[in-house]
Amino acid sequence: MRNISLLVSYDGTSYHGWQCQPNGITVQEVLQRAIETITSQPIKMYAGARTDAGVHAQGQVVNFHSESTIDLRSLAKGINSLIPPDIRVKTASEVPDDFHARYSAKSKAYVYCILTTTYNSPFYGRYAWHIPYNLDVSPMDEAIKCLMGKHDFSAFKKKDEVYHSTVREVLRAGVKQRKDFIYVILEATGFLRYMVRNIVGTLVLAGTGKLTKEGFLGIMESCDRQKAGPTAPPKGLFLREITY
Amino acid sequence: MRNISLLVSYDGTSYHGWQCQPNGITVQEVLQRAIETITSQPIKMYAGARTDAGVHAQGQVVNFHSESTIDLRSLAKGINSLIPPDIRVKTASEVPDDFHARYSAKSKAYVYCILTTTYNSPFYGRYAWHIPYNLDVSPMDEAIKCLMGKHDFSAFKKKDEVYHSTVREVLRAGVKQRKDFIYVILEATGFLRYMVRNIVGTLVLAGTGKLTKEGFLGIMESCDRQKAGPTAPPKGLFLREITY
Repeated sequence: MRNISLLVSYDGTSYHGWQCQPNGITVQEVLQRAIETITSQPIKMYAGARTDAGVHAQGQVVNFHSESTIDLRSLAKGINSLIPPDIRVKTASEVPDDFHARYSAKSKAYVYCILTTTYNSPFYGRYAWHIPYNLDVSPMDEAIKCLMGKHDFSAFKKKDEVYHSTVREVLRAGVKQRKDFIYVILEATGFLRYMVRNIVGTLVLAGTGKLTKEGFLGIMESCDRQKAGPTAPPKGLFLREITY
Repeated sequence: MRNISLLVSYDGTSYHGWQCQPNGITVQEVLQRAIETITSQPIKMYAGARTDAGVHAQGQVVNFHSESTIDLRSLAKGINSLIPPDIRVKTASEVPDDFHARYSAKSKAYVYCILTTTYNSPFYGRYAWHIPYNLDVSPMDEAIKCLMGKHDFSAFKKKDEVYHSTVREVLRAGVKQRKDFIYVILEATGFLRYMVRNIVGTLVLAGTGKLTKEGFLGIMESCDRQKAGPTAPPKGLFLREITY
């Protein structure tokens, strides 16, 4: 049995997230169906991160075991010919037998994109949260840096979501501005559901002067979801890279 | 009567070009209907450039005369609230009575975008011509520079299109690479229909080594459309800016 890994990019606009579910079409379902068509075998596929509905990915990683002997370039090409253009397999590679897209991951990096032009963009409207006024980036960057290291992030989790542990370790955190775009970058050993989007929704309050760095830190330390800001919309979120 | 000018950006994917026509929905039609709804008056609208079906614009300029006294910010906001998100009015301004979006234009700049990754991008697939192999940019840049100045561009016109004169003056011409993207930049006093796309289709031959700079110049000088390369697809073309 070969263990095959795919690097996958997708525009999540039209999908009900990554994971198969009864209510709507998902990225996993589309990919899995194409792979099973090509290899003529049912497969069990694992993903590095389960992105939510409307969230995009530039660096999703999956793996599956297969008896198929198809060469890897043909596999990637074949899958791409069977799936819609908003999902693309970038590369296919053979990985060691014990590689698991989810459990072998050392860290995941997300980027959240905010567009601050007065009018929205016809080109970036699907890929950014449009906030039609200027945000002050330096207090946002100062605030997000409070998240570095190991913390209990339950203030930023999805309401009612239950975990064994809500402690995660943030390895990289920053907010940058390029022209009209603001990028929030977060890399961590793992994320709680909605964590990036809840952090972004709270950071925006820092960007408008409504929240200080100390206030932001206080929210994290409170472990109280009620104290944090609103959940930023999914369309601005990109799973950028998974490190193994 | 005020003379009002709008700076407009649109994703041309879903439209049958700029200009009103019986066969399908156009950008002009959508904009004009929204303006007439807001001002409660029929208007005659002029555009700086009549983009073809599927072509995008970041800097389309239009003007129309109106008796309406609506303030300009409300006009722009009002139009944007009535039209789909793939067309956006960036700004509205009052211009001198004799300003004409088309006839007052000194030059127009277009950018054509080529994506050279092996797989297409789920994010840029609508906004770039996907050529899944590397192109050599320096012969493309050398070739396009032959177009600088006044020339008869009939080798690059749309077949069977008839003009009083097929002479145009190119003010800026260049090909640049940034990571996996190649950008073809052309600014001229005016363009023939399909001119940019036919130039790009021919430049790609230079990028693959099939055509020298001298060969490219020869095609231009032949004034023979048959000698030039294929028409590049509309989705890579952006009307970037009109200068007055």
